[in-house]
Amino acid sequence: MLENLLISMENHNSLFENEIRKLNVPVCDIFVKDGKIVPAKFEKTDKKIGTSDVAEVNKEFPKTVKETENKILKGISGSVNVSGKRVAVLFSGGPAAGGHNVIIGLKKVLGDGNILFGVKNGPKGLLEGTLFEIKEEDVKRILNTGGFDFLGSDRTKIKSEEQYEAVRKTVKDYQLNGIVVVGGDDSNTNAAVLAELLYDMGVQVIGVPKTIDGDLQIGDILPISFGFDTATKIYSELVGNILQDTPSSRKYWHFIKLMGRSASHVALEVALQTRPAIALISEEVEAKKMSLGDIVKSICDVILTRASKGINHGVIVIPEGLIEFVPEMKSLIAELNDIMGHYGEDISKMFTFEEKKDFIYKKLNADSAKLMASLPDEFEKMLLLDRDAHGNLQVSQIPTEKLLITMVEERINEVKNHLDEIAYLNFDEKGLERIKKFKFATNNHFFGYEGRCGAPSLFDAAYTLNLGLCAGSLILDGKTGYIASVTDFDKGGSVLALPLTGLLNIEKRHGKNEMVIKKGLVEVDSPAFKFFEKRRKDWAEKDLFTSPGPRQLWGPVSKQLPITVALNRGYSSLEFNLGKETKVF
Amino acid sequence: MLENLLISMENHNSLFENEIRKLNVPVCDIFVKDGKIVPAKFEKTDKKIGTSDVAEVNKEFPKTVKETENKILKGISGSVNVSGKRVAVLFSGGPAAGGHNVIIGLKKVLGDGNILFGVKNGPKGLLEGTLFEIKEEDVKRILNTGGFDFLGSDRTKIKSEEQYEAVRKTVKDYQLNGIVVVGGDDSNTNAAVLAELLYDMGVQVIGVPKTIDGDLQIGDILPISFGFDTATKIYSELVGNILQDTPSSRKYWHFIKLMGRSASHVALEVALQTRPAIALISEEVEAKKMSLGDIVKSICDVILTRASKGINHGVIVIPEGLIEFVPEMKSLIAELNDIMGHYGEDISKMFTFEEKKDFIYKKLNADSAKLMASLPDEFEKMLLLDRDAHGNLQVSQIPTEKLLITMVEERINEVKNHLDEIAYLNFDEKGLERIKKFKFATNNHFFGYEGRCGAPSLFDAAYTLNLGLCAGSLILDGKTGYIASVTDFDKGGSVLALPLTGLLNIEKRHGKNEMVIKKGLVEVDSPAFKFFEKRRKDWAEKDLFTSPGPRQLWGPVSKQLPITVALNRGYSSLEFNLGKETKVF
Repeated sequence: MLENLLISMENHNSLFENEIRKLNVPVCDIFVKDGKIVPAKFEKTDKKIGTSDVAEVNKEFPKTVKETENKILKGISGSVNVSGKRVAVLFSGGPAAGGHNVIIGLKKVLGDGNILFGVKNGPKGLLEGTLFEIKEEDVKRILNTGGFDFLGSDRTKIKSEEQYEAVRKTVKDYQLNGIVVVGGDDSNTNAAVLAELLYDMGVQVIGVPKTIDGDLQIGDILPISFGFDTATKIYSELVGNILQDTPSSRKYWHFIKLMGRSASHVALEVALQTRPAIALISEEVEAKKMSLGDIVKSICDVILTRASKGINHGVIVIPEGLIEFVPEMKSLIAELNDIMGHYGEDISKMFTFEEKKDFIYKKLNADSAKLMASLPDEFEKMLLLDRDAHGNLQVSQIPTEKLLITMVEERINEVKNHLDEIAYLNFDEKGLERIKKFKFATNNHFFGYEGRCGAPSLFDAAYTLNLGLCAGSLILDGKTGYIASVTDFDKGGSVLALPLTGLLNIEKRHGKNEMVIKKGLVEVDSPAFKFFEKRRKDWAEKDLFTSPGPRQLWGPVSKQLPITVALNRGYSSLEFNLGKETKVF
Repeated sequence: MLENLLISMENHNSLFENEIRKLNVPVCDIFVKDGKIVPAKFEKTDKKIGTSDVAEVNKEFPKTVKETENKILKGISGSVNVSGKRVAVLFSGGPAAGGHNVIIGLKKVLGDGNILFGVKNGPKGLLEGTLFEIKEEDVKRILNTGGFDFLGSDRTKIKSEEQYEAVRKTVKDYQLNGIVVVGGDDSNTNAAVLAELLYDMGVQVIGVPKTIDGDLQIGDILPISFGFDTATKIYSELVGNILQDTPSSRKYWHFIKLMGRSASHVALEVALQTRPAIALISEEVEAKKMSLGDIVKSICDVILTRASKGINHGVIVIPEGLIEFVPEMKSLIAELNDIMGHYGEDISKMFTFEEKKDFIYKKLNADSAKLMASLPDEFEKMLLLDRDAHGNLQVSQIPTEKLLITMVEERINEVKNHLDEIAYLNFDEKGLERIKKFKFATNNHFFGYEGRCGAPSLFDAAYTLNLGLCAGSLILDGKTGYIASVTDFDKGGSVLALPLTGLLNIEKRHGKNEMVIKKGLVEVDSPAFKFFEKRRKDWAEKDLFTSPGPRQLWGPVSKQLPITVALNRGYSSLEFNLGKETKVF
């Protein structure tokens, strides 16, 4: 009998998965009529948006800009009676929790009168024309589940004439009227390009803001991308568990790197959730022009201060992108990329590492050479040798957490032998005695993949369903060139649509100017960062950490917002309100 | 206002932590009277227990064996009216979820009429006499929270005459009548030793079975140690999330090593919870005398079979202790330890690695030398050089997951160039074409520390509270030399006490015979393993995985048992029943 139960649970039928499929999801009022889910309409507001590159962007996207005027749309109750539309949806880039609910939102809004197609395997599937019709029966299974596996995803960037032609072919083959792109900054750049490209064919293109990194965010009009909340709640539980372990086993410093690409939103959110001894924020490192040595010293100061009080443990949270934000490392990496670009072939012909090293060192400027020489051997080797297909260093491959452990360990050993070096910390005799006896034992972790495909938090489940409802309503209402947005998470949710062209700016990529959506980094004058800055000294010196626990889908703590979002948006509590809980199927 | 809320949440006051402190916990009927928690009494059953070394054990522990007769006690309703007892509790070894509830169980049973002391920092604290009185106010804060931080822990083994004297001193200084040791196999061996040592002083010693590894388990009379359920639920969520990621991003094989020391209970439980493509079970590897090459081949067969069907992703679960269970590796490691023992000094004087290697290779037998030569370079180096203080290889330090990646990658590359090597897999033309194009991309993970100190699952919260109630009742009832146990998780819970001497056997450690508690390994003829064996082929060939999700403290899926326990004990469902939910404070 138990064996039968266990076999019935295989293939996405765990007790948990079966129960979350029955969960009602909060839905914004404008999408509900008589307890049923309905589309909304949109009206143009007076609020225009644009980056400093707006003039050039407008030139590149004349048709969509003429249509949208770069003005924000606001969702209102009431729907347009439309049928016969054929709409395709695709996932693009790394998965994030809630993607499946976006599809369900689209399906619910399009209803029986219109057809929703799923594009298999991301933008590549759009080029190859691997579409299938999504039936309501299919999507009942994926309500509130994690992952992008219902469609699959990939990272193809659509930018060549050949690719454009392939998209046009797919549009014709399936007689599509609309395409919904669920993705991050690059994917929504794709969406902007497609909107312009397909404008004359009457195909509407709508984007949906996805990324666990949280770097697709624009103040009040796009407070956060979906997936960020779930990922940070997963990482926060793990960091909280490890924090709880530190005074239990009383002997380890854990260096924990967190996924999140360039921006430190993930690290900041997890720090605010867990209050570790140290959390590094890349944007602050850059703003203060900190060197690697400065960072190591600041870490050691905290470790030694705690050791002087008999606290021989702690947790250090490190954002994935840190290295790129250390100005001297940035210069060094740029120089190395240049050298490899110019002399890569010569270097590859040299036999020994020493020979290569000699050659490269001579080309570096003095500061870079000095920095390079100060790095632990294995990292020096990594910087000199490991390149991607374009000859660039793959910064994300550098195990920053291990680099910091090695450098911190070196400094601690040095300081223990030369206590005068830390005279500025003013420790008393007892404190210095403790430091002399202090054993620095470490563990390192990298949390990333485990946070992308967990079942969505209740916030992400609600947010994504409403984003899907918004995107579907935009299609029905004949809009194109917008990204769906929901804001005012604290008071029932307001539904918006932002003109994609208003988000584009010009960035140099691979030596060429490209129009891309601007990445939202952590602002060091934002309320969330300021609050972190105010509290971190106490967290560093006392053990004030918290364990936020596993995210709960039921019970009294299930409706929590990300702390960074609540602080930055000036909410008065951490509880979200995105409308009444509504039966989806 | 939000900032004030956030500051109030610091120091173990997350919204989650504040709510779990209010959760009612299931309590077995014999510990409840008129809705209040009360002690129970014990009666001797006829059931004797003992290992094959029982005669020798009885000789070493004459006093406790005379008292207990190695017979199991059964808890019954009704209590002895006792006051004035002074009892100390300590944590020993690595932390596990639920330890805090053991203390609360003790405190509730001892009540106001007896005094409970906490021993700081484990057995070492017992030697140093760092005890403090635990007040009810203190423990209200720790109800249902994770970690051992209320007391701290360490791994001191008490076995020298000097240590015995220190314990006697502490007992006298604090006028203790009882000591409760919360720990795993080694710690409960300590408890057995202390029970005998302190018998004449009238000091009772009771053990409580803790370890996330699950290797302190004895059939129906001790179905599982506490902490196992929470740790495996945490790891299962992470493995489930990564499984969900694989068909979403469609390109990675994740090699995931799981903590759990020698036994593979953790790996088996996580496999049953998540149904990955592959889960290695060390005890099976040993039983089937598999070589490292056999393991690599069996992994490759699954990877290639999936690739032949177009499934280019998957998850492999690897138990921490695998290497020790591969017979040829065991021989190699034993030989290396011997060589280092005999010639360690000579070897340390040699200058180059090549010189050392030459020397060691010549001392190895032919099979071991061949195996060694077949290992990737970095692992060869690791085996030859990295030793602990006793000259032993630290097997747990070997990154098995990376070793397997390297070896599997080598074989896959070879096979792609020599497809005739896999003729026995009978792939058709299309399958072979797919294999030729298959790109083997990997990620590796080690989950360990993040599972030890999470907030306890509802099962562990209930189990540990009842274990604490059991241990406290044993003290009040004048018993000594027992380990507390609760069984029949499916029907309200039965309370037992097992004579510690009945669990001891003789093992060779560091070349000497020692009396230790026998580790419970995975039995390859157990129902849990048999079920896994029956299903794994389907899991390997189709993507039948499940995501068990984050453990829930509220709602419809909060009362789940470990699957291995339910299977091995023949329960008919996964829901536990440990009595009525009861207000603790």
